[in-house]
Amino acid sequence: MEFELLHSDKGSKARAGVLKTDHSEIQTPVFMPVGTAGTVKGVHQRELSEEVNAPVILGNTYHLYLRPGLDVLKNAGGLHRFMNWDRSILTDSGGYQVFSLAANRKLKEEGAYFNSHIDGSKHLFTPESVVDIQRIIGADIMMAFDECTPWPCDLKYAKDSMGLTHRWLERGLKRFHETDSLYGHSQAFFPIVQGSVFPELRKESAHFVAEQGAVGNAIGGLSVGEPAEEMYAMLEVVNAILPEDRPRYLMGVGTPVNILEAISMGVDMFDCVMPTRNGRNGMLFTAKGIINIRNQKWMNVHSPVDPDGHCFADTQYSRAYLRHLIISGEMLGAQIASIHNLSFYLWLVRRAFDEIKNGTFSSWKEKMIPALSTRL
Amino acid sequence: MEFELLHSDKGSKARAGVLKTDHSEIQTPVFMPVGTAGTVKGVHQRELSEEVNAPVILGNTYHLYLRPGLDVLKNAGGLHRFMNWDRSILTDSGGYQVFSLAANRKLKEEGAYFNSHIDGSKHLFTPESVVDIQRIIGADIMMAFDECTPWPCDLKYAKDSMGLTHRWLERGLKRFHETDSLYGHSQAFFPIVQGSVFPELRKESAHFVAEQGAVGNAIGGLSVGEPAEEMYAMLEVVNAILPEDRPRYLMGVGTPVNILEAISMGVDMFDCVMPTRNGRNGMLFTAKGIINIRNQKWMNVHSPVDPDGHCFADTQYSRAYLRHLIISGEMLGAQIASIHNLSFYLWLVRRAFDEIKNGTFSSWKEKMIPALSTRL
Repeated sequence: MEFELLHSDKGSKARAGVLKTDHSEIQTPVFMPVGTAGTVKGVHQRELSEEVNAPVILGNTYHLYLRPGLDVLKNAGGLHRFMNWDRSILTDSGGYQVFSLAANRKLKEEGAYFNSHIDGSKHLFTPESVVDIQRIIGADIMMAFDECTPWPCDLKYAKDSMGLTHRWLERGLKRFHETDSLYGHSQAFFPIVQGSVFPELRKESAHFVAEQGAVGNAIGGLSVGEPAEEMYAMLEVVNAILPEDRPRYLMGVGTPVNILEAISMGVDMFDCVMPTRNGRNGMLFTAKGIINIRNQKWMNVHSPVDPDGHCFADTQYSRAYLRHLIISGEMLGAQIASIHNLSFYLWLVRRAFDEIKNGTFSSWKEKMIPALSTRL
Repeated sequence: MEFELLHSDKGSKARAGVLKTDHSEIQTPVFMPVGTAGTVKGVHQRELSEEVNAPVILGNTYHLYLRPGLDVLKNAGGLHRFMNWDRSILTDSGGYQVFSLAANRKLKEEGAYFNSHIDGSKHLFTPESVVDIQRIIGADIMMAFDECTPWPCDLKYAKDSMGLTHRWLERGLKRFHETDSLYGHSQAFFPIVQGSVFPELRKESAHFVAEQGAVGNAIGGLSVGEPAEEMYAMLEVVNAILPEDRPRYLMGVGTPVNILEAISMGVDMFDCVMPTRNGRNGMLFTAKGIINIRNQKWMNVHSPVDPDGHCFADTQYSRAYLRHLIISGEMLGAQIASIHNLSFYLWLVRRAFDEIKNGTFSSWKEKMIPALSTRL
């Protein structure tokens, strides 16, 4: 994996770059659609390529490990072939899902014990085993196993949790260096900064992570319920320490506003279920604001979903029609809203790239923030 | 609406023709995908055009009347514009759904009283009101209001029911002739033959229907649980009476085998939820047989869903991947299976057209029937 920083904004910490994997060139800042179980819900792969223009998507190790399972993924020759996606894939380490989905989870020094949320079967994830699993999945970018510290939590919990994440990181890195890619393409490994909302812990964690010399670094444990201002404060602390010449990935974030603010603080990569999950429920993000398509005001609005939109669904369907589909629980409603929101998110980061390149990012961002927050 | 009979098979009663509406030319035999509430579940309109190649789809009057409702449909300028579908639409009369879905339904001479299955609100469908509703929907082909006689039923019930359907037909036809299309395109009105599985009733009903001189005629009350042989026996009776120079539409049928058999008995038009509903549950129809994609045997079959298939999904996804999606309850699984099955059904009827034209329909059909019934 190579990362090249192309432009740095003068009015902010925003950066424009390009990340090259063996599968695609990824212009940064970038948003990665979430493809939980090897599919971005409701969106065909060709739509992800041609309409959303996503250069990279995310897969969830926890879900893929349980279903379809490692045997199937190995037989397929990895997730790229299994799902027929020839651009890049990043996988998380599974830690977050173990804590949010699995039953009877138990955290020990050796790893996380849990029962499958599907059939109750017992499993253990260790820093080593999640590297092995991600080798089998074949992600272009693999993530270290960490504990995503819950919010709120006290200083002692956060410090202990961070310590465990750091020890796990060393074990994961060791396994990463001892093993090879299975399918002939190279794989990168990103460590994760933790430390909750405590600046001193975040600093310590960022230094620890930076010292590992990884090709890219991630910031975890944010956007877990804390006020946005606390998240931004932590980003400022962490990004002052993480190396400038490596991509920075803010995990699980967020709204379009969160993304622009984080870009301005030097973040390069994002993922979030919001565009798809909220889309399925009828929330549409546009450059002019947020639409709750269930609202009665759209009942007889027979004009395009988003006249300024960037995918076929924006102009081929009307707001009144989309409202009808969402209210009726029709799959097509979820499909249209998902593809719209993803194509909007990808447009937003591409546009941010252009504005950074042109030296106009800050003024553009100041104009966009109020628009993006408007309720239409 | 115009119908031209192009070829008649020598070895059977099969016919190839073309039906022209103001929206499209429909080669017959034809299969019409079911778009219940103004959407074929899981399939984008452009996929219906470009991948499935459907020249006509079906809408359900009952569903559309309840949601989005007549106000929205009228404001949109009819269903074609509402859903952005510029080819033909046929709507049923709503009778079937009143009896299968609605609560507290009561059949009277004047019409059918029922409570909405969505919110319990009270409604009355009459032979006249369903014409008015279908005028607002703007279907190219509207259907008469009928009672779809349940199976099994005794002769007296079937005879009384048929009598009611005939009286309703006269009322519906009267309203049809007294009213005009609202959106500038012409609309046809098809009466429906009933009579359950009683040949004498079917004959009487077919004569009654034929005498109305409609531009096309439908056969209802079949494929409601009776053995296929009884259905075929009724088709033979009815098609001997219905005029040869008008299209014959067999409502709600069926499996690929049912369709080929009915084509050989002179049926021209079909609709059924089977390709989409069964598809969502993992049943795939192919030229080589039926696949239950949930079966463990497909777990590691990393070859195309249908190498002989006719839509992008057939070759872009594997059986192992589709199995994983269906088992995991992922929307994309339902999307792929629906588009595959519909594209197969439309291929089947297009191929039937070609075989009739070439005078080879019967031998082709004899070869296809065992293949289509095979469990792969």
